[in-house]
Amino acid sequence: MKDSSRKQGAACPCAACKLLRRRCGQDCVFAPYFPADEPHKFASVHRVFGASNVNKMLQDLPEHQRADAVSSMVYEANARIRDPVYGCVGAISSLQQQIDSLQTQLAFAQAEVVHMRMRQLSSPENASPSSGNTQSRRATRSLFNMDMVVDQTDMDDSIWP
Amino acid sequence: MKDSSRKQGAACPCAACKLLRRRCGQDCVFAPYFPADEPHKFASVHRVFGASNVNKMLQDLPEHQRADAVSSMVYEANARIRDPVYGCVGAISSLQQQIDSLQTQLAFAQAEVVHMRMRQLSSPENASPSSGNTQSRRATRSLFNMDMVVDQTDMDDSIWP
Repeated sequence: MKDSSRKQGAACPCAACKLLRRRCGQDCVFAPYFPADEPHKFASVHRVFGASNVNKMLQDLPEHQRADAVSSMVYEANARIRDPVYGCVGAISSLQQQIDSLQTQLAFAQAEVVHMRMRQLSSPENASPSSGNTQSRRATRSLFNMDMVVDQTDMDDSIWP
Repeated sequence: MKDSSRKQGAACPCAACKLLRRRCGQDCVFAPYFPADEPHKFASVHRVFGASNVNKMLQDLPEHQRADAVSSMVYEANARIRDPVYGCVGAISSLQQQIDSLQTQLAFAQAEVVHMRMRQLSSPENASPSSGNTQSRRATRSLFNMDMVVDQTDMDDSIWP
């Protein structure tokens, strides 16, 4: 993609240079990521971050990370244009609410499983001396086999100061 | 807070005007949200969005939404400074992974509950004619009482184009 954009550069400027009405040189930092046929991508990041900030952010990154940086900036800019008050922080807040709800549902379901296993253990059919010991050991082992494995790394930041 | 910032304005410019080295007038759009004693807040949004974009975004919003907009912009800017490649889109991606993991765990736990209820229903003690009917009806009713209630609104967007 990079090569085709560069070849294109001479005849047709990239979307960024076209919008900024400047010459699109061979060393244009925008050209590989903002092709002429996707003008809305640059328009969004320009509107939210400003062309000079985008330029600076890209220049500060090694080339192999720039495509991902552009994708995340376009996503962030579109979210801010859709929701000028919360931007993609609104999505973070909504996802955190979903996680809270899922954790509550999971805790209830796991508690019910534990409760049912306990009842099975204490039921009369398990109390018979012939099968009681083996079954009891198996059930006790799996009783503690349902920890919630949730990665909370980097999620300690509160959205609001 | 707004009033104290405005009073302060005359003697001491807000954090934005101080950084931009401009006069902080009574009608300064930044002053209510960027007090002089929190200079890092404006420094972050200025670095990521640019002062003139922040100014424009605030001017485009009614006053009662500006404080929330500033909070979300500061959060977004800090995330971008910490992670210049993914910014807060990295957090969104990580939260979505957590949701996937929780949904899988919940589905397993719910399946186990259903399985145990089915086993209870078919156990010999429930087959006795005296208590069988009532217990069977109760168990069948609660068997379908464990739907996952997950709000997927606004989550259909893919992060990457």
